[in-house]
Amino acid sequence: MKLEQTLVGLAGSLRAGSYNRMALQLAGQCLPTGWVLDPLDWRLVPPFDADLQAQGMPHAVEDLSQRIRKAGGVLIASPEYNFGIPGMLKNLLDWLSRGENPPLAGKPVALFSAATGPLGGARVQYELRRVLLGMNAMVLQKPEVFIGQAASKFSEQGACNDEVTRVFVSAQMQAFAHWVERVQRMDND
Amino acid sequence: MKLEQTLVGLAGSLRAGSYNRMALQLAGQCLPTGWVLDPLDWRLVPPFDADLQAQGMPHAVEDLSQRIRKAGGVLIASPEYNFGIPGMLKNLLDWLSRGENPPLAGKPVALFSAATGPLGGARVQYELRRVLLGMNAMVLQKPEVFIGQAASKFSEQGACNDEVTRVFVSAQMQAFAHWVERVQRMDND
Amino acid sequence: MKLEQTLVGLAGSLRAGSYNRMALQLAGQCLPTGWVLDPLDWRLVPPFDADLQAQGMPHAVEDLSQRIRKAGGVLIASPEYNFGIPGMLKNLLDWLSRGENPPLAGKPVALFSAATGPLGGARVQYELRRVLLGMNAMVLQKPEVFIGQAASKFSEQGACNDEVTRVFVSAQMQAFAHWVERVQRMDND
Amino acid sequence: MKLEQTLVGLAGSLRAGSYNRMALQLAGQCLPTGWVLDPLDWRLVPPFDADLQAQGMPHAVEDLSQRIRKAGGVLIASPEYNFGIPGMLKNLLDWLSRGENPPLAGKPVALFSAATGPLGGARVQYELRRVLLGMNAMVLQKPEVFIGQAASKFSEQGACNDEVTRVFVSAQMQAFAHWVERVQRMDND
Repeated sequence: MKLEQTLVGLAGSLRAGSYNRMALQLAGQCLPTGWVLDPLDWRLVPPFDADLQAQGMPHAVEDLSQRIRKAGGVLIASPEYNFGIPGMLKNLLDWLSRGENPPLAGKPVALFSAATGPLGGARVQYELRRVLLGMNAMVLQKPEVFIGQAASKFSEQGACNDEVTRVFVSAQMQAFAHWVERVQRMDND
Repeated sequence: MKLEQTLVGLAGSLRAGSYNRMALQLAGQCLPTGWVLDPLDWRLVPPFDADLQAQGMPHAVEDLSQRIRKAGGVLIASPEYNFGIPGMLKNLLDWLSRGENPPLAGKPVALFSAATGPLGGARVQYELRRVLLGMNAMVLQKPEVFIGQAASKFSEQGACNDEVTRVFVSAQMQAFAHWVERVQRMDND
Repeated sequence: MKLEQTLVGLAGSLRAGSYNRMALQLAGQCLPTGWVLDPLDWRLVPPFDADLQAQGMPHAVEDLSQRIRKAGGVLIASPEYNFGIPGMLKNLLDWLSRGENPPLAGKPVALFSAATGPLGGARVQYELRRVLLGMNAMVLQKPEVFIGQAASKFSEQGACNDEVTRVFVSAQMQAFAHWVERVQRMDND
Repeated sequence: MKLEQTLVGLAGSLRAGSYNRMALQLAGQCLPTGWVLDPLDWRLVPPFDADLQAQGMPHAVEDLSQRIRKAGGVLIASPEYNFGIPGMLKNLLDWLSRGENPPLAGKPVALFSAATGPLGGARVQYELRRVLLGMNAMVLQKPEVFIGQAASKFSEQGACNDEVTRVFVSAQMQAFAHWVERVQRMDND
C-alpha cells in the first residue's frame, strides 16, 4: 500500500489577501489522491545576516528546514515585485541555503505565480529557477503555470472561480506528483 | 562655480565584515574631485508587507527615500546570494519602489559587486539591472566592475590592497560622475 | 525648422507572414509627425565566424551598419524562440557588435515583441536588453510593449485590427521619439 | 556487461581555433571508462525560417537529430557573444526544437564554457539553461564549469596545459555520467 505523500507550500507574499496564497490553496485542492499540502508560515524568519547565523540557526529557520526535509516536495507560489523575487521570499531562501544539510538540496520543487497584470509573473519564475539551481533543488520543468489577471479569477474569500486556471493548476500538480516519484526513483538502486 | 555633488551608497550585506561594504568605502575614495559619498544604513527597514504599507510608509523607508531623492546618484555594492540578489537588499528595493514619487525613478545608479569566488558576482548584477529597470532607474552601463577573490584584495580593516581593483573602481567612478551629469543634461531644455 | 528623423527597423523573424514584421509596420504608422521608419532586410547576413570576419566585413553587414549609423534610432520587433532570442537575429547582432565603430554603441533602441501565446514575448525582451547592454546601446526603458495573442490582432494582410494594441504601440513610439531626443541632448555641451 | 555509452558534443563557435572546441576535446579525454564522445559538426544547418521548415526538415537538421536521439547525452561548450548565446548555436537549437519528436526533449545535457576574459562565460550558461528548459532537456545542475582566461590554458594545438581546468572538467564529466544514468533510471518501472 502506497503511503500518503506530503508537500509543503510557500506563498511569496506576506499580505493577508495575497493572490498567491489563494493560488497555493487552489493547488492543495488540485492534488492527486494520496497527496496533501501543508502550507508553511515563514513570517518569523529574521533578516539574513551571517553574523546572526554565526550565533546559531534561528529557531524559525530550523523549524521550517525540518518540515521541508520531511516533505516529498515543495510548492512555491510567488508574486513578482519589481520584475524579481519578493525580497522577503528571497531572504527565506537565503536562510534555507545555509547550514548543514540544506533542506532544498535535491528536493523536488514546483513553481507557479499569480499576478494582477497580464504576464502572470513570467519574469519572477526564471529568476526563482536560477536561485533554486544555485541551491541544487530539483525544479519541475513543464507545465509552467502563470496566473495572469488574478483579481478576476479569485473571489474575495479566496476561492478560484476560473475553470481554466483550475485545469492548468491541476495539470501541473499531476505532473509534479509524477516528478516527485521520478526524482525518488532516480536515486534508488 | 560647480557645486559638490553627493552620492549615496547601499551595501547589499548586513554583516559587519562585508567585502561589499569595503568595496563601497573604496569607491568613496575613488570619486573624482567635487564628489562625496554618503553610505546609508538600511538595517531598520522592516519586511515588506502591503498591509503594513497601507498603514503608512515606515519612517526608515521615508528617511532613506528623502536622502536618495536629494542625492545626485546611488552606488549599490552587492554580494551574490544563491545566484541572486540578497533578500534583504531586494526587500529594501521593494519598499523604495512604493508610494508617491519613488526615489529611484530616473535616478542614476552604478552597480558593482565583490565576491570571494572567481566570478565576482557576475550573476547578481544582471538581476539587479532588471529590477532597477522595473523601477525605472538610470543604471550606468559600462564599465562593469566585478571584484572576484575579494578576500585577497582587502585587509581585515577593510583597506583595498590591490592596485588593479583600485584602478577599475576609479574608472567606474569617473564614468559614473560623467553619467550623472549626462542624465541631468538629458532633461534640460 | 526641425529635420525629419529616420528610424530603422529590424524584425526578428525571417518568415513571410511574421507577426513581428506586422508589428513593426504598425509601429511605423504610429510614429509622431516628423519621424519615418525604414525597415531593414537582413536576410543576406552570413553565419558569424571570426575566421570569415578576418577576411573583411561582409558587404551585407557593412551596408546595414551604415544605415544604422545614419539613423536616429532602431526599432527591434522580435518573436521568442525557445524562451530566447531567435538565433538568426542574435547572429545579426553578433556581427553588428564587431569591427570598428559598431553601429549600435550609444544608439537609441526600442524593443517590442509579438507572440501567439499569452505572454507576448516577456522572456525574449530581457535577454535582448542584456545583449544590447553588452553592445552599449541605449535601450528605451518604459513603456514596454508585449503583444500577446497576436493571431487575433492582425489581419492576414498584416493590418492591426486591435485598438488597444495600437494605443500601446503609439505610446511607446511617442516615448521613443522623446528618448532619441534626450539621448542626443545628453552628449551636447 | 554494461554497454558503452556515447555522448555527442556541440561546440558553440564556428572558428577553427575555438577554445570551446578545445574544451570539448578536453571533456572527451576526461570521460569515465565506458563513455565516448562524438563531436558533431553543425556548420551546414541553414538559417531557421518557418517557411523553409514547411518544405520539410533540412537534411543537416534531420541528421543531427538522429545522432542526438541515439546518444546518451549531449555536451555543449559555448563561448559568450555579447553577453548571450552565439547566434548560430541558438539557430541550431531553434531547429532542434522543431518537428516531431524533438531530440533534446528529456535528453541529459551538460554545459561548460571557455572565454578569454575572467568570467569564463558566466552570462551565457544561464541563458542556455533557460533555452534548454524551454526545450525540456534535462540539464546537469552541479558542478558548473567556467574556463576563464582560456588563452593561457590551451596550447596552440588545442591541448589543455592547466591541471586545475582538467580536474574541474573531469569532475563535471564524472557527475554527468552519473546524471545520465540517473535520468535513465528515472523513467524505468
